[in-house]
Amino acid sequence: MSVAPVLARIDQDLDAALDRLFDLLRIPSISTDPAYKEDCAKAADWLVADLASMGFEASKRPTPGHSMVVAHYEGPGPHVLFYGHYDVQPVDPLELWDRDPFDPELQDTPKGKVIRGRGTADDKGQLMTFVEACRAWIAETGSLPCKVTIFLEGEEESGSPSLVPYMKENAEELTADVALICDTGLYDDKVPAITTQLRGLLGEEITVTGPSKDLHSGMFGGLAMNPARVLAKIVASLHDENGRVTVPGFYDGVPELSPELKAQWDGLGFDADKFLGEVGLSIPAGEKGRTPLEMLWSQPTCEVNGIWGGYTGAGFKTVLPSKAHAKISFRLVGTQDPHKLRESFRDYVSAMVPADCKIEFKGHGNSPASMMEISHPVFEKGRQALTEEWGTEAAFVGAGGSIPIAGYFKTYLGMDSALIGFGRDDDQIHSPNEKYDLECFHKGTRSWARILGEMGS
Amino acid sequence: MSVAPVLARIDQDLDAALDRLFDLLRIPSISTDPAYKEDCAKAADWLVADLASMGFEASKRPTPGHSMVVAHYEGPGPHVLFYGHYDVQPVDPLELWDRDPFDPELQDTPKGKVIRGRGTADDKGQLMTFVEACRAWIAETGSLPCKVTIFLEGEEESGSPSLVPYMKENAEELTADVALICDTGLYDDKVPAITTQLRGLLGEEITVTGPSKDLHSGMFGGLAMNPARVLAKIVASLHDENGRVTVPGFYDGVPELSPELKAQWDGLGFDADKFLGEVGLSIPAGEKGRTPLEMLWSQPTCEVNGIWGGYTGAGFKTVLPSKAHAKISFRLVGTQDPHKLRESFRDYVSAMVPADCKIEFKGHGNSPASMMEISHPVFEKGRQALTEEWGTEAAFVGAGGSIPIAGYFKTYLGMDSALIGFGRDDDQIHSPNEKYDLECFHKGTRSWARILGEMGS
Repeated sequence: MSVAPVLARIDQDLDAALDRLFDLLRIPSISTDPAYKEDCAKAADWLVADLASMGFEASKRPTPGHSMVVAHYEGPGPHVLFYGHYDVQPVDPLELWDRDPFDPELQDTPKGKVIRGRGTADDKGQLMTFVEACRAWIAETGSLPCKVTIFLEGEEESGSPSLVPYMKENAEELTADVALICDTGLYDDKVPAITTQLRGLLGEEITVTGPSKDLHSGMFGGLAMNPARVLAKIVASLHDENGRVTVPGFYDGVPELSPELKAQWDGLGFDADKFLGEVGLSIPAGEKGRTPLEMLWSQPTCEVNGIWGGYTGAGFKTVLPSKAHAKISFRLVGTQDPHKLRESFRDYVSAMVPADCKIEFKGHGNSPASMMEISHPVFEKGRQALTEEWGTEAAFVGAGGSIPIAGYFKTYLGMDSALIGFGRDDDQIHSPNEKYDLECFHKGTRSWARILGEMGS
Repeated sequence: MSVAPVLARIDQDLDAALDRLFDLLRIPSISTDPAYKEDCAKAADWLVADLASMGFEASKRPTPGHSMVVAHYEGPGPHVLFYGHYDVQPVDPLELWDRDPFDPELQDTPKGKVIRGRGTADDKGQLMTFVEACRAWIAETGSLPCKVTIFLEGEEESGSPSLVPYMKENAEELTADVALICDTGLYDDKVPAITTQLRGLLGEEITVTGPSKDLHSGMFGGLAMNPARVLAKIVASLHDENGRVTVPGFYDGVPELSPELKAQWDGLGFDADKFLGEVGLSIPAGEKGRTPLEMLWSQPTCEVNGIWGGYTGAGFKTVLPSKAHAKISFRLVGTQDPHKLRESFRDYVSAMVPADCKIEFKGHGNSPASMMEISHPVFEKGRQALTEEWGTEAAFVGAGGSIPIAGYFKTYLGMDSALIGFGRDDDQIHSPNEKYDLECFHKGTRSWARILGEMGS
């Protein structure tokens, strides 16, 4: 069946689709704030009703926190599971918003029309691109070209506490051939992208204790060991002069980029000068000999996220601190094993601590990297559909950050995920004046319609 | 003239001397708190009246802050200037005091009788040892054995803002042959001491800036330079593997200890195990090959007093910070030049900053070390007097901290200072339940009577 009439219907229906999205955006479903518990339930109810109206077998599923929305639609082709989240970030500082964050509006800007409001890009506007694509297919053809399960979470912005338990308990119902996740962005303004690899994350907090209490640096300075000095030595030794991380075994499981992917990434023309220039920098800080995109997407990192000890207020205090602390995180790639790395890091660091100091460690979560099996047909079909819609060759890209849901789908349901989203860098997600470009909403809907068509073909 | 009858009078007069001290202690002269401004004035008035009653030409001298008390007594011998301060520390947390801090009391303890209350040891009880010694001399002999100027400050606990300007404006009146300062302690429970060298202090605050704003470590980690990593390298490089400070020229002007002083310090039997053990440590952290007392008294130091950057709260935040900071101080000895060292430190550190980061410096005060000319007769006479009174050989000691007044006397009035005090380590100055041992008050008064006698002989 041709996708052309489905796309035409999407175009005709755009105003009505916006009205629906605005209805959903008006519900302040801030998951982290208990004051908005009812609103989260209302957003879930709204989605259940909307999906049911299209013929989905849809229901709200209770969890210890906010409900899941699960909806099924039978179809002929492969089974895809679509994931999005209906909860949103808090809105403070409210005074930095130009308008009520929950009174969405279509605005004209020099760069085109934007949908302004909390949740427009993250993630209500994005999840509705998929819902609207389904609506158009059903309205135009009476059915969907493949079997679809929609799985929407209401706790993504508050740490997803119910997600893994719910997935484990409902593994059979949720397992499909492949997952589609709509919570990422375009590669740039014009180039659509499928994210095929995500870095993992390992967090460690270290506390070095020297003297049993804060000391006066006049009375004790020179004789008593200063734990901040020890901590600085530890942190300073985590990278060598070439920017490589020195933790033993750190690079075990770090793959070299395949020639195909390397060629594709090189073809993206990533402008490191511009990327760094926007934050006041100019020199790539990763391992020497790596390209900027490798540093960001396919190489692991070690970063100090926080460091503190002693007196940090105004003025000066001649204290010799009892304790010094650092929060350190590693971005992981390939098959780096976070558990092994944690042990190796702790052994390595402990060996640097002089006899007179103690060191304590606190783990802060760990997740391995995700690398998708891009041999799955969804990747090539998705790329083709995106390329047709956007008129520019779609890219397989990496992401420097972690999107835990992709790892969970792999670990608990055995599914690869195609991360396809239509956000732009200037969407200001998590910040005041969040927006989603009308073009992204419209072409995003059309993209999903094409992808569903390709999947069913 | 023999000191024996003067000492006998001091013994007889002890109860009355305590009554006088208690009167002064009852005045809550907390200089840092504007609510106690009147009380500071009252304490100054009390001292002026007491000194005048003994025949001193005494007056309160206004300053932009709290008044000075200046009193003169003509005498035959050399001219000595005595310095103390009548202001006290705040008393909070009040709930940790066993009694009203300004209702002093003589208490029996397992270690003997103590005078309990704010200001007993720091510094009202100490300054009154000198006043009572003068009183006994005058009462017994009708005069003092040397010319005495008493100079009492009311802002020592609040940064002494008026002190240097006042000394400069009144240099002629305040300049004597030598200064006596009573604001220090015994070497230990039984060994009296004259502090003859004090370390100076140089403070620097450094701020390393990487990106222009805090970044997400997933989006930028690996490509953007982390200023906390740069800061750690800087701090880690300030000491070499032998514990020596690496700043170029740092050891210019650091003298080797004279054989005489070294022998005397070795004879003190300083128990580094006990000293460090009380704060949970066991290994001297200074330059290899130095004795613990050298590390504390005659060697310079470099200490991190504070370090901070990025996220330091509970949990974890994958931020790549824009800035990282450290407060670093140096204790100086000999003729180390704080101004030259500041420049050298800044040059040294700046050269470690990669091209993509900025570094800013903020100076936090600087004072050179004080080394007294112990050839001045007051030192040997003072030592003899103290040895006779306490029955144990008095020691010339160093102090790890800075006592700015001694430096000011040298710089602005050209006087050396003999720092002689009778505090003990457990006096809890600046803390709840401050005390001063009755033995220290009594033998301290007798010590000054002997020192005045020696000075006049």
